[in-house]
Amino acid sequence: MPLDVPAGYEILTEAALPGFLAAIPGVADRLGGDPGGWSVREVGDGNLNQVFLVDGPAGSVCVKQALPYLRLVGEGWPLGLKRAWFEQKAMRVHGPLAPGRIPHLVHYDERLFAIVMEKLSPHIILRRGLVQGHRYPHLAEHIGTFMAETLYGTSDLALPAAEKKSLVADFCANSELCGLTEQVIFTQPYMTHPNNRWTSPQLDGWAERARSDADWKMAAARLKSKFLASPEALVHGDLHTGSIMVTPDDTRVIDPEFAFFGPMGFDLGAILGNLWLNYFAQDGHATGTDPRADMQAWVLDTAEQVWTRFRARFLARWRGGATGDAYPAALFADDAGIRALEAERQAYMDRLFADALGFAGAKITRRILGIAHNIDLELIADPDRRALCEARCLTLARALMVETARFRTVADVTAGAKRIRETVQAP
Amino acid sequence: MPLDVPAGYEILTEAALPGFLAAIPGVADRLGGDPGGWSVREVGDGNLNQVFLVDGPAGSVCVKQALPYLRLVGEGWPLGLKRAWFEQKAMRVHGPLAPGRIPHLVHYDERLFAIVMEKLSPHIILRRGLVQGHRYPHLAEHIGTFMAETLYGTSDLALPAAEKKSLVADFCANSELCGLTEQVIFTQPYMTHPNNRWTSPQLDGWAERARSDADWKMAAARLKSKFLASPEALVHGDLHTGSIMVTPDDTRVIDPEFAFFGPMGFDLGAILGNLWLNYFAQDGHATGTDPRADMQAWVLDTAEQVWTRFRARFLARWRGGATGDAYPAALFADDAGIRALEAERQAYMDRLFADALGFAGAKITRRILGIAHNIDLELIADPDRRALCEARCLTLARALMVETARFRTVADVTAGAKRIRETVQAP
Repeated sequence: MPLDVPAGYEILTEAALPGFLAAIPGVADRLGGDPGGWSVREVGDGNLNQVFLVDGPAGSVCVKQALPYLRLVGEGWPLGLKRAWFEQKAMRVHGPLAPGRIPHLVHYDERLFAIVMEKLSPHIILRRGLVQGHRYPHLAEHIGTFMAETLYGTSDLALPAAEKKSLVADFCANSELCGLTEQVIFTQPYMTHPNNRWTSPQLDGWAERARSDADWKMAAARLKSKFLASPEALVHGDLHTGSIMVTPDDTRVIDPEFAFFGPMGFDLGAILGNLWLNYFAQDGHATGTDPRADMQAWVLDTAEQVWTRFRARFLARWRGGATGDAYPAALFADDAGIRALEAERQAYMDRLFADALGFAGAKITRRILGIAHNIDLELIADPDRRALCEARCLTLARALMVETARFRTVADVTAGAKRIRETVQAP
Repeated sequence: MPLDVPAGYEILTEAALPGFLAAIPGVADRLGGDPGGWSVREVGDGNLNQVFLVDGPAGSVCVKQALPYLRLVGEGWPLGLKRAWFEQKAMRVHGPLAPGRIPHLVHYDERLFAIVMEKLSPHIILRRGLVQGHRYPHLAEHIGTFMAETLYGTSDLALPAAEKKSLVADFCANSELCGLTEQVIFTQPYMTHPNNRWTSPQLDGWAERARSDADWKMAAARLKSKFLASPEALVHGDLHTGSIMVTPDDTRVIDPEFAFFGPMGFDLGAILGNLWLNYFAQDGHATGTDPRADMQAWVLDTAEQVWTRFRARFLARWRGGATGDAYPAALFADDAGIRALEAERQAYMDRLFADALGFAGAKITRRILGIAHNIDLELIADPDRRALCEARCLTLARALMVETARFRTVADVTAGAKRIRETVQAP
């Protein structure tokens, strides 16, 4: 371990876990019985974080510890480890705004950069469920509401300016992880970069287009500018279908280590983009006995519902009486003011929708041409079949980014996605 | 003095100044001679700050000390005093970007919240010079360049994101003074509020209109939202003609205690709006022997030149090679990319111009209907004559805020202002 790890930091082991947990007030009671009898399993991928699941006779917890971030070692270990601090801070802010939608936070250990939280069971990662063709009837309501509550609740509509700015300042320090997003989502896919990969040679033309299409690149650059300097609300910052855990009845948002004050459309676009990507990917998983047509219809409808539920809840909160410093209610108390404010709310939502579409397109593109791919597409073994799904994804993604104004409603995106699926052939 | 003033803080006196200054390395040499022989004069208004001018045989300094802020005593003294920290921090950031355009910073005393800086002499406050009918041939070049260099230099075009965010976080803490701006510029003039005053009864109708015109109020609310959450660059935050000191040859920007990361248009609008206000106010100072027609032409031309010089210098910096994370040059190196980036630069400047006009309108309005008036208009003794100037100001201000898109170029504003002067009669 390098010498510049913060004093006192050590990598937790399965053997050390019971002693670590037993010393935290309340945790021994939660697990029950004798620490020596607790079952401990490390289930993380070992690259960025360790994740331990701990079971006792009375209950269980999950422990997530940040590991020194090997790939960014040049930028210093302490900053890399601090992502755990941002994660627990985001949980503390978002948790009360969206009760039941994130794991319960039990404890944060500053020395070990470790979060002790509720163990989710029998939840699975949403992305995996979607790839397997499972539907989640409450997903849209849960996620739409989660975004409305957390984004509205940390915006200038809800928070007094001084309180919001204090939080903005806290999260300004999360610039290392924001910098990753700036690079791998908004920059690298549009240039020649060793991090990029794609289904080759099938998508070589698409990769070349992303590097040469000035309209597409400019759309990405504009979205990047918005990402850099639009502290609208505390966004999760990585709200794709891999950051959501589900059961048939429950939905939980995890892993907010990328949280910062950014554009609300970034969270909206993350979930919408990943659902639309999944829609096209279903064709790669369809079989004679599992044709996936109903699943595809459900995915598209769910994307529509995510936006619709978000919009309705956000507006309801705003109409219910803004508590922040933006759009002071006292200025719009007369009839003309009430009408003007309602018109402004509609325009505000239209602007958020356009932002969401742009970011959705960027999130789709990076999953196909950038460094980080996902199992919706990666699990399609036949490269030709995968490339066809991917070409359709990219067709929609570019349209969402470059021709954003063409999509006036979320139904327009549904119609556009269906048309693309019917018309776009093998690249 | 209340008990909660920070430990060690004390109010400086003329008698204490020599001892305080003599202990600061370099200051004694700068002043020369024996501290007992230094001349000390307190010239501040005593409400917010003390300002001492100190002269010795070899040179001179100016000492500005923050006083406990009586009007905001309920919010705590230490925060109030901390505005001195933001002022010196802004001087440290802006100074190297715009050499010669701010007073040289000699020393900042954290315990006394006191800034020791170059004494400007024989400078006078620009606003006073303009009211007296003086012209400053270098003003537009100096101020246009100052804004271009300080705003570009602290934007995402020039600064890497992590470096910028660190500064953004520092200035997030300046929320008390930002809150003043939010209240007295963007909120109170548009509602019934005991702080407001205006030339009454002549402008009673205008004051009523500001409280009932939904379009006008909504324009103010939109500008406020932009002010709350657009950390584009480190803005001065109070860049009116009272924050600029001039000689016929020199121009210095002072008093950046309202500095924070906000919309660039806020600084642009402050200076442009105050110049346009001064244009209309000249009619209140014209006499038979001093008709002010040439002065008015010069003021309008100067406003045009401020924008033109700003725009040219800002674009030159950007074209010269952006060093920040926005609009990565590597993405736009081919011919199509170069063309697209240049088109984006033009659109970027058009957007800044629209922002500047809106903020200019808000800055004019608050000077006539809000708490803080200025001598351009206050020194017009005859209330009818003053009210006529003010009605013209408000006509332009509302148009700039509500019908912003009507003004495509700064020449359009000049033409509009002239038309308003010719057509708007006594209110």
